[in-house]
Parts: sequence; C-alpha cells; structure tokens
Amino acid sequence: MPRAVRERQMLDAAVHTFGQRGYRAASMDEIAELAGVSKPLVYLYLNSKEELFTACIRREAAALIEAVRDGVTPGEPADRQLWDGLRAFFTHTAEHPDAWAVLHSQARTVGEPFAAEVNVMREEIVAFVTLLIAEAARAAHQDPSLPDREVAGLAHALVGAAESLAGWAITQPSVSAHQAAATMMNFAWAGLGDLMEGRFWSPNP
Amino acid sequence: MPRAVRERQMLDAAVHTFGQRGYRAASMDEIAELAGVSKPLVYLYLNSKEELFTACIRREAAALIEAVRDGVTPGEPADRQLWDGLRAFFTHTAEHPDAWAVLHSQARTVGEPFAAEVNVMREEIVAFVTLLIAEAARAAHQDPSLPDREVAGLAHALVGAAESLAGWAITQPSVSAHQAAATMMNFAWAGLGDLMEGRFWSPNP
Repeated sequence: MPRAVRERQMLDAAVHTFGQRGYRAASMDEIAELAGVSKPLVYLYLNSKEELFTACIRREAAALIEAVRDGVTPGEPADRQLWDGLRAFFTHTAEHPDAWAVLHSQARTVGEPFAAEVNVMREEIVAFVTLLIAEAARAAHQDPSLPDREVAGLAHALVGAAESLAGWAITQPSVSAHQAAATMMNFAWAGLGDLMEGRFWSPNP
Repeated sequence: MPRAVRERQMLDAAVHTFGQRGYRAASMDEIAELAGVSKPLVYLYLNSKEELFTACIRREAAALIEAVRDGVTPGEPADRQLWDGLRAFFTHTAEHPDAWAVLHSQARTVGEPFAAEVNVMREEIVAFVTLLIAEAARAAHQDPSLPDREVAGLAHALVGAAESLAGWAITQPSVSAHQAAATMMNFAWAGLGDLMEGRFWSPNP
C-alpha cells in the first residue's frame, strides 16, 4: 500500500480518536489499531503523538478552509457569497464532527502550540471574510464607506459568531446545517433590529 | 491584615502574573513576591497553583458578569439594553486585560477542568442574552415570532461575536471600548445588509 494511503488512514483514525476521546485520553495503541497498522509504523510515519495531532489539525484546518472557499462563487452579490460560505461551513462541520472537535475544542485546550496552529487557520478565514465585507461595501458605493478598522472588527465578530453557533448547533440534533446558516444570515445580514420587526433574511428575495 | 484582604492581594498578583506570562510559565514565587507575602502563605491560603488559578477564573468571571448586569437597565428598549451591556463588556475587558487573558486565552488552553470553569460563565452570559432577545421579540409583538431555537442560536452567535471582537480589540490600541461596542451594534443590531446601504446603528436615533 502506498505511503500516502497509509498515512491518510492513520490520520483518519487519529482525528476520529482525538475527536471522540480527547487528546490526552487517546492512545497511540487505539489509533494504530483503528488504522489497521502497527504502532511502530505510526511512529515511523508521524514521529510522536504531538506531531500526529499537529498533522491532524493542519489537515482538518485546510479541509475546512477549502470547503468554505469552494462553496463561494466570486462575483456573486455579497449576501449570496456569505450565505454560500456559511452553508459550506456549517455543512462541513456537521459532516465532520470529530474534525470540528479537534479544531474547536481539543486544539485550543491542550496547549499553546496547538492553539497557535488553529489560530493560523482562523486568521486565514478572518482575512477571507474581511475581503468579502470590504468588497461588498465598495460595490455598494456608499458614503460614508466602511472604514478599514470597522471592516476588520466586523470580520472578527462574524467569524466568532459562526464558531460559537457551530459549537452549539453540533450539540443540537434538531438544528440542520441549513438552519444554522440561516440563523447566521438572520443575525449577521438582517440584524436583530430587522428580526424584531419581522424582517428575516431570505435566500430568495 | 485580615485574611480577606491578603487573599485579594494574592489573587490580584496571580491574575496579573497568569495574564502576562501564561499559566505554565508563571511561578508561585513571583506571585508571592508581587503580592508581598511568603510563598508558604500562598499555599496555606490557596493550596496549589491549580486551585489558585481556579480561584482567579471564578473571581474574574463573576466580576465580568456583574459588570455586564450592572450596565443594563431592565425595561429599557432592547437595543439600548444591548448597547449598554456591550459597552459594559468591552469597557470591563479593556480595563482588565489580564483578567480577560486569563478567561479568554489561558483558561481555555491550559486544560479541560479550567475550560469547564469558563464555560459555566459563558453559559450564564448566553442565558442572559437569550432572555434579552426573547423579551425583545415578545415586546415587538411580531408574527411570526422568533422560535425558541432561533433565539438560542442568535444568543450563541452574539456571545461568540463579542468574545471574538474583544479578543481582537484588546490588541488594537486605536480601538476604544466605545468603538468596539458600536461595531457590535452595527453588526448585531443593524446587520451587514443595512451597513451596506449606509444605515448604521446609532445610540441617538
């Protein structure tokens, strides 16, 4: 079996085990067993539990970012791009709960170096959202336009809101990815002020 | 000196040291020195580094929640309550950056038991915001009203947005607490859709 395939099996097993049992409780024995390989082979390929965990974070962070980018069509209206990106985000996290547990909970609580790995991904998503908001504001040709600092603040708020909502939605079997994305649009696009007046955001205006 | 005063000095020193240097790097020696007491006295009062850190989390979480509750006047219009609560939140975190570092970064990354302590506070704030949104929606008498599940989702989104924005704002010397609260109102109350049209939220309509 080629090395790349074996490595992918090991990472699949590791993400599942870390996500289900937590970093500290997860053992290299069970990861090797789940991957159907010997423990020495896991160490040969990935060196240590720390490096294996780091490899999981990097792979899953890249997969999440790719899913969001792939979901969005550049040039569409801003709310459509946001809606598409949010649906991709909530669908990906709902379909990969172990990966989301690794990125959202495990990596942050286990220690500083892993938290820093996740922050790299987070900053990439914030930069992507910042660009999206800035472009939308430019396209709307408003005066006064949104100052850069305001755009950066809004992007941080939006990413924090989506993370928090995903952490909650994943514990609610009755909340679908579509519903979570709709809640985010109601919050971030329509705003609470409009919701109070009964004006919800809708994908079909 | 009364025990309560000594204990407060120790906690003040501990929050400052943990906030500045991180949980692992902080030593009981420097905390005792900063508090102006002997190390054995710190252990006598607070048992261990873990318990000292837990005491810091509990005290600072309670102080933050109290600040937000005190900032809000029940019975005011919903956007005014939200604005007051957000200003109290951003003012408190800006004025107590070490406490915020302990709650927002340290407690989450050091390990599961500490992260759980912070989550208790977080759930209390989410419950408070949930009530605020639900009451506002009821007061607005809209049909269709906001379903409970949507309100819970919105509250989680709002708290995540404020946390994320505070984490960013604290690193930006040019962003005041007032500006951060205004950005949150623009985001959460006006919504990005209104902002694109140049309709900002304002405390003086």
